[in-house]
Amino acid sequence: MKLLVTTLSISFPLYSSSAPRLLTSLFSMSAIFLGSSIVPIQILSHRYPRKLSTAMAACIHTSRTDNATQIDDLVYDCGKFRRLNFGDLVSCVPISQNHTKTVHRPTVLDDINGDGDEDDLWLRMKGEAQSDVEQEPILSNYYSNSVLSHDSLESALANHLSLKLSNSSLPSNTLYDLFKSLLREDQDIIRAVQDDLRAVKERDPACISYVHCFLNFKGFLACQAHRVSHKLWSQGRKILALLIQNRVSEVFAVDIHPGAKIGRGILLDHATGVVIGETAVIGNDVSILHNVTLGGTGKVSGDRHPKIGDGVLIGAGTCVLGNVRIKDGAKIGAGSVVLKEVPARTTAVGNPARLIGGKENPIKLDKVPSLTMDHTSHISDWSDYVI
Amino acid sequence: MKLLVTTLSISFPLYSSSAPRLLTSLFSMSAIFLGSSIVPIQILSHRYPRKLSTAMAACIHTSRTDNATQIDDLVYDCGKFRRLNFGDLVSCVPISQNHTKTVHRPTVLDDINGDGDEDDLWLRMKGEAQSDVEQEPILSNYYSNSVLSHDSLESALANHLSLKLSNSSLPSNTLYDLFKSLLREDQDIIRAVQDDLRAVKERDPACISYVHCFLNFKGFLACQAHRVSHKLWSQGRKILALLIQNRVSEVFAVDIHPGAKIGRGILLDHATGVVIGETAVIGNDVSILHNVTLGGTGKVSGDRHPKIGDGVLIGAGTCVLGNVRIKDGAKIGAGSVVLKEVPARTTAVGNPARLIGGKENPIKLDKVPSLTMDHTSHISDWSDYVI
Amino acid sequence: MKLLVTTLSISFPLYSSSAPRLLTSLFSMSAIFLGSSIVPIQILSHRYPRKLSTAMAACIHTSRTDNATQIDDLVYDCGKFRRLNFGDLVSCVPISQNHTKTVHRPTVLDDINGDGDEDDLWLRMKGEAQSDVEQEPILSNYYSNSVLSHDSLESALANHLSLKLSNSSLPSNTLYDLFKSLLREDQDIIRAVQDDLRAVKERDPACISYVHCFLNFKGFLACQAHRVSHKLWSQGRKILALLIQNRVSEVFAVDIHPGAKIGRGILLDHATGVVIGETAVIGNDVSILHNVTLGGTGKVSGDRHPKIGDGVLIGAGTCVLGNVRIKDGAKIGAGSVVLKEVPARTTAVGNPARLIGGKENPIKLDKVPSLTMDHTSHISDWSDYVI
Repeated sequence: MKLLVTTLSISFPLYSSSAPRLLTSLFSMSAIFLGSSIVPIQILSHRYPRKLSTAMAACIHTSRTDNATQIDDLVYDCGKFRRLNFGDLVSCVPISQNHTKTVHRPTVLDDINGDGDEDDLWLRMKGEAQSDVEQEPILSNYYSNSVLSHDSLESALANHLSLKLSNSSLPSNTLYDLFKSLLREDQDIIRAVQDDLRAVKERDPACISYVHCFLNFKGFLACQAHRVSHKLWSQGRKILALLIQNRVSEVFAVDIHPGAKIGRGILLDHATGVVIGETAVIGNDVSILHNVTLGGTGKVSGDRHPKIGDGVLIGAGTCVLGNVRIKDGAKIGAGSVVLKEVPARTTAVGNPARLIGGKENPIKLDKVPSLTMDHTSHISDWSDYVI
Repeated sequence: MKLLVTTLSISFPLYSSSAPRLLTSLFSMSAIFLGSSIVPIQILSHRYPRKLSTAMAACIHTSRTDNATQIDDLVYDCGKFRRLNFGDLVSCVPISQNHTKTVHRPTVLDDINGDGDEDDLWLRMKGEAQSDVEQEPILSNYYSNSVLSHDSLESALANHLSLKLSNSSLPSNTLYDLFKSLLREDQDIIRAVQDDLRAVKERDPACISYVHCFLNFKGFLACQAHRVSHKLWSQGRKILALLIQNRVSEVFAVDIHPGAKIGRGILLDHATGVVIGETAVIGNDVSILHNVTLGGTGKVSGDRHPKIGDGVLIGAGTCVLGNVRIKDGAKIGAGSVVLKEVPARTTAVGNPARLIGGKENPIKLDKVPSLTMDHTSHISDWSDYVI
Repeated sequence: MKLLVTTLSISFPLYSSSAPRLLTSLFSMSAIFLGSSIVPIQILSHRYPRKLSTAMAACIHTSRTDNATQIDDLVYDCGKFRRLNFGDLVSCVPISQNHTKTVHRPTVLDDINGDGDEDDLWLRMKGEAQSDVEQEPILSNYYSNSVLSHDSLESALANHLSLKLSNSSLPSNTLYDLFKSLLREDQDIIRAVQDDLRAVKERDPACISYVHCFLNFKGFLACQAHRVSHKLWSQGRKILALLIQNRVSEVFAVDIHPGAKIGRGILLDHATGVVIGETAVIGNDVSILHNVTLGGTGKVSGDRHPKIGDGVLIGAGTCVLGNVRIKDGAKIGAGSVVLKEVPARTTAVGNPARLIGGKENPIKLDKVPSLTMDHTSHISDWSDYVI
């Protein structure tokens, strides 16, 4: 354990300039994959060093204390404290008490980019919008109304969502006022919005700019509408939250129950047909393809949906059913049916899903699958793949 | 056979106060699961006892006459006469002659709730709407236009569907007049609408009220739009029926051919991506998740789509292809591909689908899967599930 | 080789009345399935005989020259030159240089129907529209605005798409002007539109007329919107192309990247949930069901999506991932996950997909699967299908 702390303190200065807060789970995720070339180099030069919070220290104290001398062991230890951490977040605290903290906990991206970063990203998006209009003048009204006439990301997002989700029964100005006030009063949402924008831009080679994602990616927009409806849900405004869920399902074909808790840095790629149930929990930096179901089973109320760890990648058309955990850094292949827990950093494929490498000794991934977006490198290990 | 009739007559008084009509298949479904705790107790106290119709008597006479002394045998016999019945309904009678009778045959819920029940349900929905508005005053216009200003469920449904399905080419008032007159002239549709409302409320723990389902569940709305388009189809108004099918596919991402025959008490949960072909038949009290396909094969016309029995549960992402039967009370796991008949009360899973327990001696379900909504209890029996 | 050419010249007069162009791959597809009863008889009586183009001659010269004395060998040889041809089209030429040629190469249908055929089809559609209005007078405004008031298929299509894809931010007249000018300037698109109309009418027994397909089939409309956005993409107008992609994804739940190259005679049946990536290539006369993904893997840019040959049929819910080839005339069963090449005229099913008949000696199809739309005839050969 000592070695672990030492190693971590070398790479990640943990002194915060502001009030202590929970160390993010992505932080440890990055540690897990320290040996990997895909971890962005910036994580080694945080602009906003932070103190190790009390909560985190406690968490570390409960983890294993073997001498971990190799990356793989280090990884294991990190995984250990992170799983505990994730476990606490997911199941030990009632939803109504701490959902905001658990859902909108800061990520490494936040550490990297700092608090002043919203303005940077927003200014960059306005620059991209200006450039787009120069290329395509027939869209100048559209860009003006959607981006250029707004003075903040909150305002532009509230406007864009309200236009998309309005209909003859729900005027866009009612929705705009509602969305804008919710985004203004909860800056955690806007930070999550930014992380999502970066996630899409970073992971999807088809995304050509932040403003492209903001205007066009229905997975991104559905996720942001969910953040708003989740906020309403947590305030007890269930009627309104459920109405927004329905409009998102109609307009974007994405059905996320407002009760679901979703972390930051989320990519819902293509997004059509995604279904996420009421008691599902999704960690940070997760990538989910279209037609993925995080579904319940039975008709009893209560905790009945999957818990998805950080850094997980779930391929297209996959069903995860029941209150099962997909642990951090796991990958689930396209078209899989998963009804049981998937260990951290393993790959599950097939219907019913099996672990690549076998149940006893599954092959461990050395990169974060949600960041590599590698859907197929397991082929050679999929012994019965005969074509 | 004698014993069967005796037993049934004890539980279900079969004397109708009105003209004789076909005994519903759900009736026998309930008998099948008599030993199960999930059968609502009310089935034992029908308010509207009915006579065993001639058609049904004939049907019973063709079934087995062994001495059935156990619940399981009783079940078998009931299943027997019901399958015959279902078979007749499905394939022996041309669509154009009897679709109304076969599709809108009464169910146990109808027996339970009686004819005066529409008003009760409608009044309850209005009460729920009033309560919602008190919680969320910014929605008062929406609720007024959608529910509170209407004097009947027909009127509210016609209005809600017409607003959802209208566009610049199809004015909502044209659709409203059309829908309202169809709903007025065929009270069987409104009874089916009520059964569907009850089905969603009863089986989906995420459904908080009837008015929530009515306003927000696109699976429910798509199903009701189908009932209208099926009525048009059966009247020979194919052009209009197909246009409604298309609008439903665009607005709700649910594609049900107007020729498909769908029973009562239907739950289309989440609903995105559901595809149901022209000659498909779905029994009563069926639960179908999103992305389920009841598809054809080949390009010859004629009877080419699946026949789904009563009480069937079909999990998310499943394809059933060709003119195959999924018999009463069967369950099909998520992500399955089914190309052959599935026996009654068995569970089929996988791609290609296999029967839990094996082909020779499949495990028989003792509860109605569409009502329990249990998607995963087969795990322990799924021998090669290795995660 | 000699025999092959001789045989071909008997069946298909290859003299063009216009400038030489690439022989279509469907042409050879038809030759492949010469022994099959499903090849429409008209291919034997071309109205517009064409010269064998230099390009094609070269292609043939590079193919095998064994004495092919049987249909099967003939088929093999044809397949040989076609695969080479398809290979050239798919991977040897940069997208920016020849996409138009490769995507909009003529097909047998084009040979059959000739250049004057647009007017014929358009007049037939107007006749159908007139008949529909007589049956359903409440739709007379709709049909007038959508079909009857237009003087060409280009105009009607530009109008219909612009109304479907417009919203409060994107006025329909802006889209109409854009679509109409693009369709006017590239007659190849309109020829592809016609082939698609014929493909839907020919292959989908639920399609009752050309005008039914034109007005109602969202797969057809999504495909035509893609043809327009692909044209914009190839002109470097990426912003506009991506905006159209997004609107199609929202309105039709079909997500086709504008960079994807799609041939002619395409059927996207039901279409909900279809996802086709940026570097995917689809040949001619392909049938793709709903929820099919032609997806990438990894987040590197560059050629990363599947290449689908001519005459391929892909069943509902199937994922094909990565830069793999599905060769001409192959069939992929519903719900499959395909990560490796599928040989020509074979059938792949399952998750992971396997070849029917085994890897070493797969059973060869003798009919074009995209034309037969036969999804289930492989059942008896699917050895482990145990239900």
